[in-house]
Amino acid sequence: MRVLILNGPNLNLLGTRQPEVYGATTLKDIEQMCHAHAPEAAIAFAQSNHEGVMIDAIHAAKSTQDGIILNAGAYTHTSVALHDALASVELPCVEVHLSNIHAREPFRHHSHIAPVAIGQIAGFGAQSYLLALDALRAHLAKT
Amino acid sequence: MRVLILNGPNLNLLGTRQPEVYGATTLKDIEQMCHAHAPEAAIAFAQSNHEGVMIDAIHAAKSTQDGIILNAGAYTHTSVALHDALASVELPCVEVHLSNIHAREPFRHHSHIAPVAIGQIAGFGAQSYLLALDALRAHLAKT
Amino acid sequence: MRVLILNGPNLNLLGTRQPEVYGATTLKDIEQMCHAHAPEAAIAFAQSNHEGVMIDAIHAAKSTQDGIILNAGAYTHTSVALHDALASVELPCVEVHLSNIHAREPFRHHSHIAPVAIGQIAGFGAQSYLLALDALRAHLAKT
Amino acid sequence: MRVLILNGPNLNLLGTRQPEVYGATTLKDIEQMCHAHAPEAAIAFAQSNHEGVMIDAIHAAKSTQDGIILNAGAYTHTSVALHDALASVELPCVEVHLSNIHAREPFRHHSHIAPVAIGQIAGFGAQSYLLALDALRAHLAKT
Amino acid sequence: MRVLILNGPNLNLLGTRQPEVYGATTLKDIEQMCHAHAPEAAIAFAQSNHEGVMIDAIHAAKSTQDGIILNAGAYTHTSVALHDALASVELPCVEVHLSNIHAREPFRHHSHIAPVAIGQIAGFGAQSYLLALDALRAHLAKT
Amino acid sequence: MRVLILNGPNLNLLGTRQPEVYGATTLKDIEQMCHAHAPEAAIAFAQSNHEGVMIDAIHAAKSTQDGIILNAGAYTHTSVALHDALASVELPCVEVHLSNIHAREPFRHHSHIAPVAIGQIAGFGAQSYLLALDALRAHLAKT
Amino acid sequence: MRVLILNGPNLNLLGTRQPEVYGATTLKDIEQMCHAHAPEAAIAFAQSNHEGVMIDAIHAAKSTQDGIILNAGAYTHTSVALHDALASVELPCVEVHLSNIHAREPFRHHSHIAPVAIGQIAGFGAQSYLLALDALRAHLAKT
Amino acid sequence: MRVLILNGPNLNLLGTRQPEVYGATTLKDIEQMCHAHAPEAAIAFAQSNHEGVMIDAIHAAKSTQDGIILNAGAYTHTSVALHDALASVELPCVEVHLSNIHAREPFRHHSHIAPVAIGQIAGFGAQSYLLALDALRAHLAKT
Amino acid sequence: MRVLILNGPNLNLLGTRQPEVYGATTLKDIEQMCHAHAPEAAIAFAQSNHEGVMIDAIHAAKSTQDGIILNAGAYTHTSVALHDALASVELPCVEVHLSNIHAREPFRHHSHIAPVAIGQIAGFGAQSYLLALDALRAHLAKT
Amino acid sequence: MRVLILNGPNLNLLGTRQPEVYGATTLKDIEQMCHAHAPEAAIAFAQSNHEGVMIDAIHAAKSTQDGIILNAGAYTHTSVALHDALASVELPCVEVHLSNIHAREPFRHHSHIAPVAIGQIAGFGAQSYLLALDALRAHLAKT
Amino acid sequence: MRVLILNGPNLNLLGTRQPEVYGATTLKDIEQMCHAHAPEAAIAFAQSNHEGVMIDAIHAAKSTQDGIILNAGAYTHTSVALHDALASVELPCVEVHLSNIHAREPFRHHSHIAPVAIGQIAGFGAQSYLLALDALRAHLAKT
Amino acid sequence: MRVLILNGPNLNLLGTRQPEVYGATTLKDIEQMCHAHAPEAAIAFAQSNHEGVMIDAIHAAKSTQDGIILNAGAYTHTSVALHDALASVELPCVEVHLSNIHAREPFRHHSHIAPVAIGQIAGFGAQSYLLALDALRAHLAKT
Repeated sequence: MRVLILNGPNLNLLGTRQPEVYGATTLKDIEQMCHAHAPEAAIAFAQSNHEGVMIDAIHAAKSTQDGIILNAGAYTHTSVALHDALASVELPCVEVHLSNIHAREPFRHHSHIAPVAIGQIAGFGAQSYLLALDALRAHLAKT
Repeated sequence: MRVLILNGPNLNLLGTRQPEVYGATTLKDIEQMCHAHAPEAAIAFAQSNHEGVMIDAIHAAKSTQDGIILNAGAYTHTSVALHDALASVELPCVEVHLSNIHAREPFRHHSHIAPVAIGQIAGFGAQSYLLALDALRAHLAKT
Repeated sequence: MRVLILNGPNLNLLGTRQPEVYGATTLKDIEQMCHAHAPEAAIAFAQSNHEGVMIDAIHAAKSTQDGIILNAGAYTHTSVALHDALASVELPCVEVHLSNIHAREPFRHHSHIAPVAIGQIAGFGAQSYLLALDALRAHLAKT
Repeated sequence: MRVLILNGPNLNLLGTRQPEVYGATTLKDIEQMCHAHAPEAAIAFAQSNHEGVMIDAIHAAKSTQDGIILNAGAYTHTSVALHDALASVELPCVEVHLSNIHAREPFRHHSHIAPVAIGQIAGFGAQSYLLALDALRAHLAKT
Repeated sequence: MRVLILNGPNLNLLGTRQPEVYGATTLKDIEQMCHAHAPEAAIAFAQSNHEGVMIDAIHAAKSTQDGIILNAGAYTHTSVALHDALASVELPCVEVHLSNIHAREPFRHHSHIAPVAIGQIAGFGAQSYLLALDALRAHLAKT
Repeated sequence: MRVLILNGPNLNLLGTRQPEVYGATTLKDIEQMCHAHAPEAAIAFAQSNHEGVMIDAIHAAKSTQDGIILNAGAYTHTSVALHDALASVELPCVEVHLSNIHAREPFRHHSHIAPVAIGQIAGFGAQSYLLALDALRAHLAKT
Repeated sequence: MRVLILNGPNLNLLGTRQPEVYGATTLKDIEQMCHAHAPEAAIAFAQSNHEGVMIDAIHAAKSTQDGIILNAGAYTHTSVALHDALASVELPCVEVHLSNIHAREPFRHHSHIAPVAIGQIAGFGAQSYLLALDALRAHLAKT
Repeated sequence: MRVLILNGPNLNLLGTRQPEVYGATTLKDIEQMCHAHAPEAAIAFAQSNHEGVMIDAIHAAKSTQDGIILNAGAYTHTSVALHDALASVELPCVEVHLSNIHAREPFRHHSHIAPVAIGQIAGFGAQSYLLALDALRAHLAKT
Repeated sequence: MRVLILNGPNLNLLGTRQPEVYGATTLKDIEQMCHAHAPEAAIAFAQSNHEGVMIDAIHAAKSTQDGIILNAGAYTHTSVALHDALASVELPCVEVHLSNIHAREPFRHHSHIAPVAIGQIAGFGAQSYLLALDALRAHLAKT
Repeated sequence: MRVLILNGPNLNLLGTRQPEVYGATTLKDIEQMCHAHAPEAAIAFAQSNHEGVMIDAIHAAKSTQDGIILNAGAYTHTSVALHDALASVELPCVEVHLSNIHAREPFRHHSHIAPVAIGQIAGFGAQSYLLALDALRAHLAKT
Repeated sequence: MRVLILNGPNLNLLGTRQPEVYGATTLKDIEQMCHAHAPEAAIAFAQSNHEGVMIDAIHAAKSTQDGIILNAGAYTHTSVALHDALASVELPCVEVHLSNIHAREPFRHHSHIAPVAIGQIAGFGAQSYLLALDALRAHLAKT
Repeated sequence: MRVLILNGPNLNLLGTRQPEVYGATTLKDIEQMCHAHAPEAAIAFAQSNHEGVMIDAIHAAKSTQDGIILNAGAYTHTSVALHDALASVELPCVEVHLSNIHAREPFRHHSHIAPVAIGQIAGFGAQSYLLALDALRAHLAKT
């Protein structure tokens, strides 16, 4: 299983940012947990604060990956362009969020990613990524 | 880990109902998959089409369970009473959905369960339940 | 023609309740009118104030009836679960209302039943049921 | 029973237009089915694509008809003027639709006709007209 | 003063239609009251149930009238085309209504005519027209 | 005819304020025009910037006036209390506005006064008051 | 005075549930306080988590009670069926709430019960019930 | 118990105004009923049609009263300033209404007072005040 | 290429109407420019202020034309009936507008025509028609 | 520089009211800080809880002041009349707020003052006034 | 004619992405078609997935181009910054879209580009660009 | 005081862009005015049209600056990511705008920056920055 785990804006600050909402784990920690959780997988782990860089990364995944795990951060709620990028590459995508976005401010309830994802996992902190790896592995096994 | 897996309206028809949306697995199949996936857990698996019966079951879980996995079905979108029931018993709850509710009709995007759940897993069919078991186990291990 | 005529909340009070809106005919009267109007049909006539009981009855109809005539009463406007129940059993359903719901309070204009019904008949009092029997009979004759 | 059956815009194309929505029956067929279904009735059957012509026809019905069966087509959703015309002539009106307008696009759910009609019959194709004749006959018998 | 007094849909039924809202005066009566009230004026008094005929009449007024008094009836609330017609001919227009539209159903509160009229007079029955004649005369005297 | 002509906030500045919207006539000028236009009437002409003073004035009119002409200015759009005051005293009220409020900003389109007024005259500058006097006189003559 | 005091979903958990919102008093305590406060009254005190059971109880009250005190809990905000049940039995109903629902989340501000109740008392904890008994007693004394 | 009972706009007309909504009791009657109902209390009973006067009265209550009973009348629905005044003085406030505001026009359903009041009592006519006195007395006894 | 170029309300005034918005070219000029631009095409050029006449023209085009270029004017924003007419005849339709409707008042942003057109060209004055001819020609060449 | 610094409802309680939102500084303190900060300016410092008094003060400023600094408090969000008063006197106005209104409840985000002010300063406590003095001084120097 | 043809996010994938919506032509193909269609023009053809890069490109065009043809892709619906960039450079801009955005999901109906473009061409696939070149050429010829 | 003054999209064009809205001062001028106004401060002055670059700059400020002055330009209204970036770094931020955004188009009234800023200064052109420096200096002095 080749998978791109793509992280959006401000996730590079993880562990330093509002720990009461996002926890103390850093993005580096999550990357290592992912490798440990799915040692058989070839995981490309990336982060960017730039919407355009994220779109480029999704495009590049088309010929190099089997699936995408996407935590688009704040762009989840505002980016039609990421929606279109995912629709274009037609790779299975699992949407993840560290926090339970549906229990936060109303402007975080809507996701532009959801309509082009196979499913959504939100609220379990770093574990959301591990669950997403399991979900993607199972999805690929079926198809 | 003692856990109530509670299923709401129409889930008893699973496997017979709109398989293009929900798949061919029956609820009985899911129950067995859950036992197989978490053999160490004491799983109480229940289903009801009655909102009141579901509330009663959540109340009863207060003194007998460590956590709840809830697929409230259509009541997800309409039941303030289930929201209040979960708030009352103060057990950790993982919200699950077979389909990706955020990719379906707009009236399925809002969840009354989310604000009182630790997280939401939607779109992975029967596997949503297995992921929820993993999520709940990890959550209980932390607390 | 085997048909379930299912009536929702408060319809048991028919004839005693707000006669200026609903008329003086009782639900029993309507049942008898239905038998007289469609003597060749095997009519199961039921009423419940419980949303869950109504869902159960729709499920049970799946293997025992050819069609459903549904007056969901107030649940017409609030129950996604009844919508899903009808979608699950895939029986032809005719939606009926004693009063013209589109001429009453705005919250009675929307029907969760309509998207899964073949048609809607509203405003003709007890006769709405007789028209529904004719409509269902003709529909079944075509298919 | 003298009755005006008035049809609105585009219904003249019936049978040629989107048969998956409206069926293959022509408006001429429906007219003949109406005469056959209610041989005792004096039926004036008309169609126009002009809102103003329809208003004129409703006005003319005041002194010549006992009731109106109205399929206002697209004007159902946009014409306050037809609403006012019906309110002015104070004849009993049954609103009919070939398709189940409540199961189609949201802009077809609202009816300006409903508040001034005794009831609505929608979704039964040509048979909607026959049911409307029965409904109007029963209504006139009561009053 | 040459003035077109143009009346919209259903106003031909005036005196026969919902007298508790519109009074018992006929449109003919109003025409005569207008002539009596402004004997010096050349009044063209017209009525149509057809939106297109009303547009044509407004166009024709461009070279033959000094101003327009318009009771657009139900088209007041739905017709962008009448709005554009008035904007095109650039004649001073006084909007009149027999009833106080702002005290009736919400869908009668909005006027497409108002943004292209010098003013609005609503609620005074037949006298609304006489006040409009006074208002238009005074307006023309100023310009 | 005894009539209170009551003017609301900022109307004391008339003639000095935004003349392109409201004209150069002062409120004093309007008062004199009213006396000249209806010499037989006992006109009490008042202005206040205070909502409470306006309510008091309406209350006082109950036993001393036959009707009210009200230009509530900006309070037209925000004051439920003035609405209730007029409903309490049950005097016929004509609502006037110098400008055509329906052709201005959307927040000026709604009137809390309209539902308790016999009619509305808007857009004719100072002449709106004279038309209102005529309208009130005619109304009182009828009742 | 014969009175049904009917309590809706989750109120059975009172005293154990979110005491910062609802207080530490149990529903049993409230029942005893009611008996002590109105010793002359025949009080039937009931609770259910089932909307259908509540409807049945309201129906049964029709011939056995003089009035209803209803704390419909979460169903207050979602149940058109309870609204219709109260309208059907035509008993005076006082709506009570332990917490001040108008000071909580917006989805708790709307009440389907209010339009069919004589009044509403909200925010006084257990005392809300005692005030409701006083209010109902006074209401019955007047009628 | 020292209590300010403050009444808002138009309540001075009580007994003369729309008795079918508000009853025939005058505000003077209510004041006397309050004194009779709570003879041990020092009641300051006031009324004003002026929002500013009401704010001043609430400010003055800060050092002289133990609580406030507020019937803000129409200002209930429009006054953020009264909301802020109550928040400033931090006295317990019981909101009262003669009529059941939640059963009237939609614009009367929202209360700016509620978020800063301990509770709301609406719909019981003059008795609303007596219930409020009981509620406030009990509240003060607890704190 | 046989093409109907159909123009809606007020376009007959082109060149005289609000030239700052629509330019000084007349509809006759546009017709001639179309003939000059597509000399090989059989162009039927029509205009009507009547919605019904426009529907009739679209119906008639079904058997006589290869495509339609439609400038529906103000009916663009209000006519569901024109939408249905185009859907019925199933001819390729290019929607044109002289002005850039998306840069004007919000009520001109929505088009009922767009969902049944192959594309939209707006904002280029008379040239919009020439571009539409090119677009339609290319479309027909492909199919 | 002659400047009116006008303060609205509840600001007289400053220093005593919700200090976590507004700070402990009194309005008197702010007045003195203003004099100290702009000793060359003739500052008229006023406060009122009465909307009408504030309007009167703005009117009076027209001939006596060079500019206005306005903290309209709660009237910021509800008063069209203050908006009109500022528009009438055509003095440069700087809008100030102690708290950052855009970070508080949604109903405090909209300002009726802003469209008639040169700018807005919000969130800096007492210093907001000093910044406003600097802003107004610079504005007057430019014009 | 010097023209920048600027393409937004995901358009680099053209020909590979959802061909049922966007066709099989690549962006390179379109570039060549543009050169062939307007051989006299100096066309700078660019694409970026980065909103910031697009803004920079528009800025750079100010001194080097005569006009802009902009297909902003998904940024059409979300980017106020692109709107402002176009307003800043004050070059004539033609907005193009491959698909008919007004016939797709509602969130694609609104364009932030339209208010600062001379016109919009949508729905003609690659030909949209050729039509835009013609439109821009004609526009430049006029000015 | 170390401060980052960060400017968003299109502000690099300042002085050339719509001077009637933004004035003729360039961004370079503003930078120099800032240095002159706060010579004791270490000011890092930056501008970018790239949302991602702005997020990076805010992140970098965390360990190098004492506060941020942010003019996010058009991203003010659309960027949840900038909101989150500011929340992450927990530096005091003053939001500035050259124009009074609350007096412009409605889509410029909402700020995603405001909830994470200490205050907002809008409408004073280049001086907005100088006021912001004063505000930030005073804020830092307090904390």
